[in-house]
Amino acid sequence: MAAPPSPEEAAAAPGPARPGSTQASHRLLAYSDALLSIIATVMILPVAHTKIHPDQELGESVQQQLLAKIAVYLMTFLIVTVAWTAHVRLFQVIELIDDVVALLNLACMMLITFLPYTFSLMASFPGVPFGIFMFSTCAVIIGLIQAVIVAYGFYHPYLLNHQIQVSENKTFYKHHILKIILRGPAFCFLAAIFSFFFIPLSYVLLGLVIFFPHLTRFIIWCKSKAVGVKEDEEEPHSLESFSFYLSEPLSKERVEAFSDGVYAIVATLLILDICEDNVPDAREVQDKFHSSLIEALSKYGPNFLAYFGSFVTIGLLWFVHHSLFLHITKATRLMGLLNTLSLAFIGGLPLAYQLTSEFAEKSRNEIETIQVSCVITFFASIFQFAIWITALFHERETLHPFARYGGKEHAFMFAKLALYPCVSLGAFFLTCLLSKFSTEIFHLMQIIVPFAFLALRILVRISLVVIRAMMNLSQWKDVSLEEEEACLSPAETLS
Amino acid sequence: MAAPPSPEEAAAAPGPARPGSTQASHRLLAYSDALLSIIATVMILPVAHTKIHPDQELGESVQQQLLAKIAVYLMTFLIVTVAWTAHVRLFQVIELIDDVVALLNLACMMLITFLPYTFSLMASFPGVPFGIFMFSTCAVIIGLIQAVIVAYGFYHPYLLNHQIQVSENKTFYKHHILKIILRGPAFCFLAAIFSFFFIPLSYVLLGLVIFFPHLTRFIIWCKSKAVGVKEDEEEPHSLESFSFYLSEPLSKERVEAFSDGVYAIVATLLILDICEDNVPDAREVQDKFHSSLIEALSKYGPNFLAYFGSFVTIGLLWFVHHSLFLHITKATRLMGLLNTLSLAFIGGLPLAYQLTSEFAEKSRNEIETIQVSCVITFFASIFQFAIWITALFHERETLHPFARYGGKEHAFMFAKLALYPCVSLGAFFLTCLLSKFSTEIFHLMQIIVPFAFLALRILVRISLVVIRAMMNLSQWKDVSLEEEEACLSPAETLS
Repeated sequence: MAAPPSPEEAAAAPGPARPGSTQASHRLLAYSDALLSIIATVMILPVAHTKIHPDQELGESVQQQLLAKIAVYLMTFLIVTVAWTAHVRLFQVIELIDDVVALLNLACMMLITFLPYTFSLMASFPGVPFGIFMFSTCAVIIGLIQAVIVAYGFYHPYLLNHQIQVSENKTFYKHHILKIILRGPAFCFLAAIFSFFFIPLSYVLLGLVIFFPHLTRFIIWCKSKAVGVKEDEEEPHSLESFSFYLSEPLSKERVEAFSDGVYAIVATLLILDICEDNVPDAREVQDKFHSSLIEALSKYGPNFLAYFGSFVTIGLLWFVHHSLFLHITKATRLMGLLNTLSLAFIGGLPLAYQLTSEFAEKSRNEIETIQVSCVITFFASIFQFAIWITALFHERETLHPFARYGGKEHAFMFAKLALYPCVSLGAFFLTCLLSKFSTEIFHLMQIIVPFAFLALRILVRISLVVIRAMMNLSQWKDVSLEEEEACLSPAETLS
Repeated sequence: MAAPPSPEEAAAAPGPARPGSTQASHRLLAYSDALLSIIATVMILPVAHTKIHPDQELGESVQQQLLAKIAVYLMTFLIVTVAWTAHVRLFQVIELIDDVVALLNLACMMLITFLPYTFSLMASFPGVPFGIFMFSTCAVIIGLIQAVIVAYGFYHPYLLNHQIQVSENKTFYKHHILKIILRGPAFCFLAAIFSFFFIPLSYVLLGLVIFFPHLTRFIIWCKSKAVGVKEDEEEPHSLESFSFYLSEPLSKERVEAFSDGVYAIVATLLILDICEDNVPDAREVQDKFHSSLIEALSKYGPNFLAYFGSFVTIGLLWFVHHSLFLHITKATRLMGLLNTLSLAFIGGLPLAYQLTSEFAEKSRNEIETIQVSCVITFFASIFQFAIWITALFHERETLHPFARYGGKEHAFMFAKLALYPCVSLGAFFLTCLLSKFSTEIFHLMQIIVPFAFLALRILVRISLVVIRAMMNLSQWKDVSLEEEEACLSPAETLS
């Protein structure tokens, strides 16, 4: 009746060798990444919707309120990222899924969506044990579900990563991944217990969940610098056959998917509000604006301007991120951390732009808000730049040859990544100097940057030619600059 | 200095054969899909946030208001889907990208985000030409940018699909893709002009944008049935070498990515509100609830229940969708349309669940809202079932052998897809019969369904054994049932 399966079909669907309805996990992971990125950025909404009257100064009470909300946002972002990292690790071990794993993962996702809410409860009622208890309980249950997934995976070994599957030390791997997954929940469990006795200790424990991995890493790094132990040997329990490098590189695809989700939700954050709130009421238009729709809409002009500014900036930062990760072959944990920080700042961009346009007319806080926008843009882009610098330090493992020091795309990548930090810093200082024209400077920056990106390749080429010409001139005088030139000229030797 | 690129590195990044910074397009497309799915569902927010007082009946004025908003939501969803389809077609032709294409695509995305807003303007002011003009202008500019991308692609042929690249009829392909992309904008252009003279004609033209492809398809199908022309020969301009099947199958990956985005944003829609609005105020807790946080939170109980219900339902429908597309090898246009309709109903689920729990205590409209939830769930799931039925009609091209009629996963897939339609229909009629216990029935349904999915494989096996046993019994009496059995038993012949 049916034709034999073509090789293409066989590759796309579960092969006959695996039992049951075993499936590739890529779509489950993509869906999880989409959910997690939305959850990570959700706490920016209360910040963005803080109403400030235009005639009100950015006074202390408002500032404090805003700062508290921003702190909640940043902490939630970091917490969800920790959950995401554990999720990445988990599905590096479990490479194939079946229906049970898929359903357990969905349950896990649902609990993760409660993390931002319980965290903001905790932040609003710092002295009440119930908030801490709820948050910790959520985290513990998430950990337990993930542990069940691990147990299920090791009970059905055909679901595991091939390297673990053929290894003789399955138990070691099992304990190792369980340790990574349950470390956070264990701290949370203790925090939940201590919340009834001594609340400050609970907070210290919860803080450890976020910073423990980075702290240990940092301590190891310091030790290696002080004592001179090679960093590669740091893991005392690494077996001889430990070629499966569990604790270091994140999955590049998942970093990209998570980042894409954050960029997408943040880019559309303002249009969500515009679509909901800024459609004028038919009756109002008739009464107030003499039935002129255009007049009524002009009232919302600043909102559209803010949307335009934030979408363009986020779109272009995505573009830079995209170009950067195109040349990255492996994402280390430090690069993941820098990426998270960059994303956290990007979440603040719509808010900054909204403030900018709200104050565009009433010039009382104009300069401050424009400077805040510049600072956020600067930090979002400088962390991207830092990823690139970090990658350059281990360029053999982490970068594509084209992008390495001396590669033919090196100078271009450098320019791409440096554009936003330079422009935002420039705009910041210009507004300090020419405070009268701050709005004009800011809008000019927004308009120029996209065109700068379009023409960047040409600009880089011109400046390379100019630099080389200057080098040649100076070479006549001094031959020692030769080495420096080599790194700037697109060397053809690698391709 | 640098090691020669490993084969893995060479595959992951731009190969040396392609000029400049040519890149694979998958991440650009994933990002676009994420943006488009958020934009498609944005108009559900005004529907979800329509405030109805609990003591107010779902009276006519509220109903009309809601219905108008729902109509806007559905139309926006369809419009964005049309834009998405054009985008899919475009990037089936242009397979590699460079920086210019990426930036043009981002500009295009930004304009698409304005479609929902301009459409709701048009819907709020149906008699004002400005709304129609704005919407049409947006659509025209989107079309023009996409046309520029096509022109750019054909000017740099290394960006094109390989099949087109080697073909001698490049001009034909160029005109064909331009026709697909510019058909909608052309209608919109006419609508913009007519908006100043004769508004009804504008609406007819805009309606054509959405329904024209399906209408022509339907007419062709009717013709083929009436005259008896084979469907495959329908395209009069298909050249002999027309192996690149431009107008029929959608890219399966992009259908999945777009669906994932919609499922993710809809699943988190309620938690967005909860995180923003339902953190109790510290002062209020002290005054109203005697500093008892738990008491204050219990006020929000129904909201959490609604979130739980909608997340679980959407998560499980995603799970069904995931299982379904795992066995689909090719997505035809009709399947794409059914998928869109299913997604449109899924967008309504959070709203339905929110209504359900808002009325959970005040039992005035209780039954109505529960029934609305059941109906929406039914339609969302029955359209998924319809995708499966459609796939079965052309199972050789569209389904993996396992899932085909007689395949070993066939019965299981059937059960998975039939579960939600059956349960929601059952709950609907039960609430009609036992209207007193409607809330209990509804919550029972929510709790049972996830466990039903977990145990589904076992249930299916048991029922298959039972059916086979019954078949064997009846076979002794009548041998003619043999054929029917074959389709239900997991035939091993295919694997």
